[in-house]
Amino acid sequence: MTAQPFHGVLVPVLTPFTPAGEPDAGRFTAFCRFLLDQGAGGLSIFGTTSEANSMSPAERMALLDHLVAAGIPAEKLMPGTGACAMTDAATLVRHAVGHGCGGVLMLPPFYYKPVSDDGIFAFVSGVIDKVGSPALRVYLYHIPPVAVVGYSLDLVGRFIKGYPQTVVGLKDSSGDWSNTAALLDRYPGFAVFPGSEVFLLDGLRKGAAGCITATGNINVPGIAKLYANWQGPRADALQAEVTTVRKTMQAYPMVPALKRVVAHFHDDPEWAAVRPPLTALDRGQSAALIADLARIGFSLGERRERAAAE
Amino acid sequence: MTAQPFHGVLVPVLTPFTPAGEPDAGRFTAFCRFLLDQGAGGLSIFGTTSEANSMSPAERMALLDHLVAAGIPAEKLMPGTGACAMTDAATLVRHAVGHGCGGVLMLPPFYYKPVSDDGIFAFVSGVIDKVGSPALRVYLYHIPPVAVVGYSLDLVGRFIKGYPQTVVGLKDSSGDWSNTAALLDRYPGFAVFPGSEVFLLDGLRKGAAGCITATGNINVPGIAKLYANWQGPRADALQAEVTTVRKTMQAYPMVPALKRVVAHFHDDPEWAAVRPPLTALDRGQSAALIADLARIGFSLGERRERAAAE
Repeated sequence: MTAQPFHGVLVPVLTPFTPAGEPDAGRFTAFCRFLLDQGAGGLSIFGTTSEANSMSPAERMALLDHLVAAGIPAEKLMPGTGACAMTDAATLVRHAVGHGCGGVLMLPPFYYKPVSDDGIFAFVSGVIDKVGSPALRVYLYHIPPVAVVGYSLDLVGRFIKGYPQTVVGLKDSSGDWSNTAALLDRYPGFAVFPGSEVFLLDGLRKGAAGCITATGNINVPGIAKLYANWQGPRADALQAEVTTVRKTMQAYPMVPALKRVVAHFHDDPEWAAVRPPLTALDRGQSAALIADLARIGFSLGERRERAAAE
Repeated sequence: MTAQPFHGVLVPVLTPFTPAGEPDAGRFTAFCRFLLDQGAGGLSIFGTTSEANSMSPAERMALLDHLVAAGIPAEKLMPGTGACAMTDAATLVRHAVGHGCGGVLMLPPFYYKPVSDDGIFAFVSGVIDKVGSPALRVYLYHIPPVAVVGYSLDLVGRFIKGYPQTVVGLKDSSGDWSNTAALLDRYPGFAVFPGSEVFLLDGLRKGAAGCITATGNINVPGIAKLYANWQGPRADALQAEVTTVRKTMQAYPMVPALKRVVAHFHDDPEWAAVRPPLTALDRGQSAALIADLARIGFSLGERRERAAAE
């Protein structure tokens, strides 16, 4: 296995849309910069939280072009390359590698169900072979609650064995701690990122590389503090804090809720827009969410100050 | 509601791939012509059976360009336009309308789960509005066993009310007869196509427009004969015959099994290739399938002769 380009708190960055529904490259770049300034260890742009599958490959590639041109370091980027067609996936992966991205986050093909491990292996290995670059680092993206199709424990082992220099990690958004624990037990040295900071401390204690979490869009400081202090005396208290924020968010549809929080704390109402099939929170949900966050003492600004003061 | 461009036996045409894994436009065109010659009422190219979601939008559009250039009548075509991004869906729909296709078969966006009826409505109506053509005829593609996301009965009603000249029908591949029956009861004049010929006779007796069925790839003559004679004395016997063929096929993974049958009866082994994530039948399965078909007296050629003789 190869050296790991990513660790810490990775953020699947929200994608802002203009009032006309187009990806908003300017706001996106500013937000990526903000997250890195806050201490994100990397940006897994174009994930589920990013509404990436609601954008065409061309739209995603244009956003990445813009980020890199604007000076966001490509080695900090782990673009999602989700696609049902090998041809689309290969186009996206090749483009990311061409920009020098630190890695890519690869969904399995998610239209056909059921599919066999052999079929998923043929898809992913076919993409890797088509791209044919020694610079490619693939992180498998396991998110069965949404994609339905996922990477079984055995299949992960086949990739590690078949592509030891290329398939170097996995984001586990199964929401099933026993799966994350089994991955960490079976594949030491393989970079496992739980898909939620709720499992960050437990994960780190078993060798996880960090986490890749939707809530990073609003709480990099809190989660990064836990990551930095996970072996310290306050680790469990810090875990409890970030878990409280996460659980508060989870009472709402995650993507529209995160966008609402960004719109609120960045004082930029247009940020709340989502693309169909997602729908924005209504007025009542929005007010309840902001009230819930106030109740637990959460604000982007305060968190930043507290992180800085410590 | 508007005049219906399609009725009878529609075939979601299998897509042949070359040994290098590219869509094979030549074999595809020849096969489309063969199916129309056999009596197919239309070709819903680029459906689930077509492995359409395993092809990029550009690959699908190139195949459609080739078909039309080769003289396949566009009004007989109902291309699937399955995509998770509105931008991709709009590109595919616009392209099909530009060619004068009789209609399009539109999947709901199938990545995010769960999604609300409001979100699906916004997606599909957004695509229709973007394309903005009075020539567009949309058939909703309801296939929850694969896409997971589907069109609820109420949502179908919203489309009929909101777009009476445009959303004119639905393919029901739920496999749930009670859903098909409810659609036929609630929306008379709306063109409902069961997604399997198993429900053809029951469907026709309640006003269905025909069926759109995977097995049409190998059994247009049998199914078309039932369609032509559904009010005759032999209707139930003809239904039993086509049901036997369908049930035989259903014991195998449908797409690779159909391709194996085409390869066998057209004496063209390359036809058996599938694209990942699907996998071809192995040697044992292939032999068993051909033996099962022989046992029920099925062959493409014999069926054709028997259809012609009657």
